[in-house]
Amino acid sequence: MNQPDRTVLALDAHGGDRGLDVSVPAALQALAEDPQLEICLVGDRHSLERALAQATQRADDRSRIHLLHAESVLGMDASPVQALRRGRDSSLWKAFEAVAEGRAGACVSGGNTAAMMAVGVKLLGTLPGIQRPALMAYVPRPRGRTGVLDLGANLNVSAQQLAQFAVMGSVTASAVEAVERPRIGLLNVGHEDGKGHETVREAHALLRSLPLNYVGFVEGHDIFGGKVDIAVCDGFVGNLVLKSSEGLARMLLEDLRGTLQGSLRSRLGAALARPALRRMVARLDPSAHNGAPLLGLDGVAIKSHGSADRTGMTRAIVEAGREARRKVHKRIEASLREFGLETST
Amino acid sequence: MNQPDRTVLALDAHGGDRGLDVSVPAALQALAEDPQLEICLVGDRHSLERALAQATQRADDRSRIHLLHAESVLGMDASPVQALRRGRDSSLWKAFEAVAEGRAGACVSGGNTAAMMAVGVKLLGTLPGIQRPALMAYVPRPRGRTGVLDLGANLNVSAQQLAQFAVMGSVTASAVEAVERPRIGLLNVGHEDGKGHETVREAHALLRSLPLNYVGFVEGHDIFGGKVDIAVCDGFVGNLVLKSSEGLARMLLEDLRGTLQGSLRSRLGAALARPALRRMVARLDPSAHNGAPLLGLDGVAIKSHGSADRTGMTRAIVEAGREARRKVHKRIEASLREFGLETST
Repeated sequence: MNQPDRTVLALDAHGGDRGLDVSVPAALQALAEDPQLEICLVGDRHSLERALAQATQRADDRSRIHLLHAESVLGMDASPVQALRRGRDSSLWKAFEAVAEGRAGACVSGGNTAAMMAVGVKLLGTLPGIQRPALMAYVPRPRGRTGVLDLGANLNVSAQQLAQFAVMGSVTASAVEAVERPRIGLLNVGHEDGKGHETVREAHALLRSLPLNYVGFVEGHDIFGGKVDIAVCDGFVGNLVLKSSEGLARMLLEDLRGTLQGSLRSRLGAALARPALRRMVARLDPSAHNGAPLLGLDGVAIKSHGSADRTGMTRAIVEAGREARRKVHKRIEASLREFGLETST
Repeated sequence: MNQPDRTVLALDAHGGDRGLDVSVPAALQALAEDPQLEICLVGDRHSLERALAQATQRADDRSRIHLLHAESVLGMDASPVQALRRGRDSSLWKAFEAVAEGRAGACVSGGNTAAMMAVGVKLLGTLPGIQRPALMAYVPRPRGRTGVLDLGANLNVSAQQLAQFAVMGSVTASAVEAVERPRIGLLNVGHEDGKGHETVREAHALLRSLPLNYVGFVEGHDIFGGKVDIAVCDGFVGNLVLKSSEGLARMLLEDLRGTLQGSLRSRLGAALARPALRRMVARLDPSAHNGAPLLGLDGVAIKSHGSADRTGMTRAIVEAGREARRKVHKRIEASLREFGLETST
């Protein structure tokens, strides 16, 4: 099914909280947005046929859709061990297998992150020097978006690993975002050289010696301030920063909704301002930035948020298409070698 | 100047980016809000006299204000070493000295945090078992506020230190917030027992053994979700979570402002909804939650944000009054001893 100008993606159609109800319409939406895509829906063949029949109007809507049957589905709470032991017939496994065997350029799943990591490492392997893949998410900022990594896969990291994250983030942003020399920052409790614990100080020295556009230490507020394109941190910090930001954004938007529904006067005001407010909420909506690459695997894999809606899943699929087309993993491998970071410490 | 029903505070009047312009009006505002307060303004006597003359209308406005002269001012970028070596004549030092000598029940400063820590440890000393004080900030949530600690003083912490933070936060919330059994959460990358690195898992086991209202591991979004009253983490994580949240809140509010000023229709809508929006912004404003106690010192000291405005500084002063009145440090000392956490590891 691989045509030279086509990018084939394997989509774990059962991944995510809402399974086929989200993944099938999202796949069709992504195909409409990106005419070079082909999507291989991985899951229970009968359910997929049924969902497709409901979602598509004409036969030619299906010309760029393929089906790949999988016997089972991994639950959202599947552990890595369960995924590896009992997951071989699952839609997640089959999606990764399609990438490993060269039948797809990337896979996408909204399933359990740890299970996805484990299956990804097993089937695709990691790049030389990478112990575990890192997860990078995008957050909005006044113009564009900032990539933050790692988000939870690597809790205790060395300075060398932080430098690897920086390289992987930089390569991805320049390949996918068309940012020529992405500005890289290392998250710390202050900008000054002596700040922070030993690992970040060591990573700071290492990053300065590399031919990256490294701007130095940055602070928490710089993530949303537009000072950097990529913010680097260990997975413990990254996970907490991202999840607390999600929590705060949710509270603020709910507050705004409640505020505007308060008095008659506010309701009238809100009605008038609605189109502008909708645009703002849409831009801030995590769905608009869904699609987190697992970087460091020898292949392209994109994690979609478990609770992603159709818009969110569409974004993750389109992101996968871009990364597959640019063979981001091969560029990362070349850069790690060029920078002497291809050995693990 | 100590009357039995009065609480005397020493205010470093030069601390903070805007010095006397903020601290003097804030002091008067705090006195108006809390009739039991007396405030000792610490700084250059002449400048203070002038600022007071401008800010007060009648002589009796000054009945609860005292002046304490200080020869010098520590800059906002003063290092701990500079503060200790050359800071003995500074307003910060004199404010802490007033607490150390029992002339004030608490001190407040908007100066450099690290310098404040150093001077606080030097003059007040730490409580038994505490290596360095922890900084606790409050963040808004749908109802009330959540205390988060530590915010940057302790970058590498042991499980025992995390447990000490939990006790200090719990005691403070129950004394000051009148929360009977504050719900304590330990920040981690997931709720499940096996999640996270060794230190948080060890702290989790320790916290479960203590007679606290410990609810277990919580995630980043729980800070703003109202699941806990106190969220505990190391200072590296706490600093990044707080500063990234501040950055996000600032971006969202600016976005909202820009959105509502866009079209004529939006501007009209915004004008109608303005009173409601103002209330919302005021609630989310960091000023409304200013005043971070340094916990673990043998005395009460409150850090005000360097960029705090008059409203913010007023909140910090009122907070200091509450903590001084309840002798929070003595309650913390008693709890640490009761829980067997009075030895440092």
